[in-house]
Amino acid sequence: MKLNERGLLVVLSGPSGVGKGTVRKALFDLEGHDLVYSTSMTTRPQREGEVEGSDYYFVSHEEFERRIKDDAFLEWAEFVGHYYGTPKDKVDAHLQEGREVVLEIEVQGALQVREKAPEGVFIFVAPPNKESLYRRLLRRGTETGDTIQKRMDKAEREFPLAHKYDYIVVNDEVTNAADRVLAIIRAEHARTERSIHKYNQLLEVGKHE
Amino acid sequence: MKLNERGLLVVLSGPSGVGKGTVRKALFDLEGHDLVYSTSMTTRPQREGEVEGSDYYFVSHEEFERRIKDDAFLEWAEFVGHYYGTPKDKVDAHLQEGREVVLEIEVQGALQVREKAPEGVFIFVAPPNKESLYRRLLRRGTETGDTIQKRMDKAEREFPLAHKYDYIVVNDEVTNAADRVLAIIRAEHARTERSIHKYNQLLEVGKHE
Repeated sequence: MKLNERGLLVVLSGPSGVGKGTVRKALFDLEGHDLVYSTSMTTRPQREGEVEGSDYYFVSHEEFERRIKDDAFLEWAEFVGHYYGTPKDKVDAHLQEGREVVLEIEVQGALQVREKAPEGVFIFVAPPNKESLYRRLLRRGTETGDTIQKRMDKAEREFPLAHKYDYIVVNDEVTNAADRVLAIIRAEHARTERSIHKYNQLLEVGKHE
Repeated sequence: MKLNERGLLVVLSGPSGVGKGTVRKALFDLEGHDLVYSTSMTTRPQREGEVEGSDYYFVSHEEFERRIKDDAFLEWAEFVGHYYGTPKDKVDAHLQEGREVVLEIEVQGALQVREKAPEGVFIFVAPPNKESLYRRLLRRGTETGDTIQKRMDKAEREFPLAHKYDYIVVNDEVTNAADRVLAIIRAEHARTERSIHKYNQLLEVGKHE
């Protein structure tokens, strides 16, 4: 029996190249959960084959800026002239249904989410060491040396921010990392601050006081 | 990779009749952990078939009281003329080896442990409702109505103490409860306050500052 019936907002974050996406995919492949991936909203043009509401919610620049003003995003950022953001209402609807919503986002975005949704579960995905992260960035092979150097510098600035997260999970082996994230989700539902309300109802605590 | 190398002190507690012992046994039957059960020390006479160091550590009244004075127990209590306690040094030795030490104790004992070892993981095992606890107490069949009534009254006083624990796990189905306890253990190792030290070493955070 799960005492906490509301879903959890699970934020998977960490430096670029750490394998957040791979961990997230492995997590969704595991059994025994009700996870849903949060679809981002963007102003960049829809590409062929992309599905509205599944790959992204596609909106106009004006629409996006209106939503920023309405505080309708858990986090948002601009990237090469286009906006990207996580719509709050979609996330809330899933949480209300009791589903766990997984966000896979960059460190700066995660820290934005922390301010708006402190009750979320913030997981920093860490490389086992610096070398493995650098090797991964180089192995992508599609980027120039300059871009790779920039990503490495960014990672160096992000490493010290791990202490702002609730959990640190090392991505040394992707199934291990995904297993640990699932354990975190199961454990968090049992945390007293999330379960005490339902517990008090069930055991009629404070009812006669 | 586990960033926290020290074992966890896992305190399984809850009202009498809730099935702490059954959950503990089911937990030890699960795979993928390195759990050790903490052996208590007592002044009560050794019974036939009981093994020193496995069932209990058997010591004299004088020896036990000397140890109380030396603050050598995580918790202790007197029960029908005999002392029972959890020796601190034995627990520490296991934690140092990286093994998780499981204590299965009453609510008052658990709150004593909390004072001496706040870094422990405190889990309140709860019944799904009052009736199921009462039915369990009655089903034992070996106790008089008076004793059962006393246990029920004690449980009523203990229910409101759940909020002092880190986690509340409902024992509706014993394997579910044991699975959740194991998830809690896995998750706790990844908690930032337990893993940040090793993480900072691995990623050389703060090394050049």
